[in-house]
Amino acid sequence: MKKAQGNISPSSESELLELISSLLPKPSRDVMTGIGDDCAVIRPMHGSKFQLLKTDALVEGIHFASGTPPECVGWKALCRPLSDIAAMGGSPLHAMITVAAPSSFLSSEWKALYRGIGKAAREFGVSVVGGETVRSPSPLFLSVSLTGTVPKNCLKLRNGAKPGDLICVTGKLGGSLKSGRHLGFTPRLKEGQWLGSRNEVTAMMDLSDGLGSDLPKLAAESRCSFQIDPDSLPRHRGCTTAEAFADGEDYELLLTVSPKAWPSLMEDWKVHFPSTPMACIGRMTKGDLTPTPLPSGYDHLRQTKS
Amino acid sequence: MKKAQGNISPSSESELLELISSLLPKPSRDVMTGIGDDCAVIRPMHGSKFQLLKTDALVEGIHFASGTPPECVGWKALCRPLSDIAAMGGSPLHAMITVAAPSSFLSSEWKALYRGIGKAAREFGVSVVGGETVRSPSPLFLSVSLTGTVPKNCLKLRNGAKPGDLICVTGKLGGSLKSGRHLGFTPRLKEGQWLGSRNEVTAMMDLSDGLGSDLPKLAAESRCSFQIDPDSLPRHRGCTTAEAFADGEDYELLLTVSPKAWPSLMEDWKVHFPSTPMACIGRMTKGDLTPTPLPSGYDHLRQTKS
Repeated sequence: MKKAQGNISPSSESELLELISSLLPKPSRDVMTGIGDDCAVIRPMHGSKFQLLKTDALVEGIHFASGTPPECVGWKALCRPLSDIAAMGGSPLHAMITVAAPSSFLSSEWKALYRGIGKAAREFGVSVVGGETVRSPSPLFLSVSLTGTVPKNCLKLRNGAKPGDLICVTGKLGGSLKSGRHLGFTPRLKEGQWLGSRNEVTAMMDLSDGLGSDLPKLAAESRCSFQIDPDSLPRHRGCTTAEAFADGEDYELLLTVSPKAWPSLMEDWKVHFPSTPMACIGRMTKGDLTPTPLPSGYDHLRQTKS
Repeated sequence: MKKAQGNISPSSESELLELISSLLPKPSRDVMTGIGDDCAVIRPMHGSKFQLLKTDALVEGIHFASGTPPECVGWKALCRPLSDIAAMGGSPLHAMITVAAPSSFLSSEWKALYRGIGKAAREFGVSVVGGETVRSPSPLFLSVSLTGTVPKNCLKLRNGAKPGDLICVTGKLGGSLKSGRHLGFTPRLKEGQWLGSRNEVTAMMDLSDGLGSDLPKLAAESRCSFQIDPDSLPRHRGCTTAEAFADGEDYELLLTVSPKAWPSLMEDWKVHFPSTPMACIGRMTKGDLTPTPLPSGYDHLRQTKS
């Protein structure tokens, strides 16, 4: 269908986001960051911490294959938004979980699903305070909403990067779906909180759609461009550079760092997180410079249409 | 299927709720009320207000028929959890909205859907701060998460009713689905806040599943029983008493009131809400008395299985 027909669907997440934003009222003054960052950030009426809000959905056939063990689905459903809380430098507090399941979903599957959710909740200190279960004619669908908190001086947004800042990633990239890593990953909460406390970190986000899709978002929010050295990408064994850029679902942290502070930050990082690599993969540049062309990452709308 | 086979699905929402609760970690100390009331209630670290958290899902074919104008769907999706905030005596603050739509969902339908959401957000002072849109192989699915707030001394729970308290409802009951009222109702936020501020109100909840299903929940939480005079039920025109008990989706407030305070409360109510009826329909009794048998209300799990 074409636009002239007046009824095409928005063709990408960003187009749809623009349409949606235009139809909603202006957020109230206490909303520091609304739609557009990893989490929404709310200014508190009292105290020295921001409130973080995040919601994230998981759909069978899109975010996990039919036949995936429900315990893994439950774990992933809670860990995905936890990764967003991590990317703000925050700590999670309360979760609400909605599950829509077909009537063929067995009692043993409900149990396994909530065992996975409970395991993640225990591991990362989340209180599940509400939610809903509903029969649905559709495949399994989960929606998780999380609240969190972050000290005002530890909040990291996507818009703080400056030309000259180094671009860094935690861990290794690529092959998450192929290897099944996306079902059992550990959200980088400790790392995110530690990085949040460091002034040298100028911007941060989590890598869910793939570096090739996520880095341009961070750059756009910071009104910067970027240069990447593809050879410096930390790749999982057996992954090509293109896969490390485009596979997505890495749930690693992407951050920018003041170049002067990089050596001391790395030194401290190695002490605190000796088993987690941190790599410098490029540099932010002025906004009018052409960025390194990247193999594109994941876009839920495009993905399901292609 | 039978229980002996070991793999039947939980047969009701309450059975499933019990199963789920047993698999989740104990909520943290700041959680005053978790799963089980209209909203979760969180004790604040600072200030004199509780935080309210609520999530609510809307599924095509269950909560609205295929072909329902998307603007009405959007309105209803936000107003349903607003009704829960109202039932706590609270005020809404921030919303996160997830929409999963089939690829056949047109641009004009997206617009209409968010026009309805935007209209409700404007009307009731809600900031939409996040959410997600995702293509889904299933019918239209919406999940709305809301935060709200309530002054500590205005919070109304389900568990505060005492034997002898009068049972009251706002508005009229029955026929909501038949008349289409469920698509355009106004959540009783002003009324809920006003009732929240009155000490004579001992318990409150909203009527979403129908009085016949909701009143027993309030009674169970308050460890009371109840006696109802079916003839006193305020019914919408054309509705039978059975329909007023069992139809559901009324989105009125069900409350209990100290009997001594009833005359003065009613007098003030009529001044503040002259166009909204408030009826006394019965009385809470001691927990060991047999309650009035009621035509049962709505249970999403049973409903879709029958």
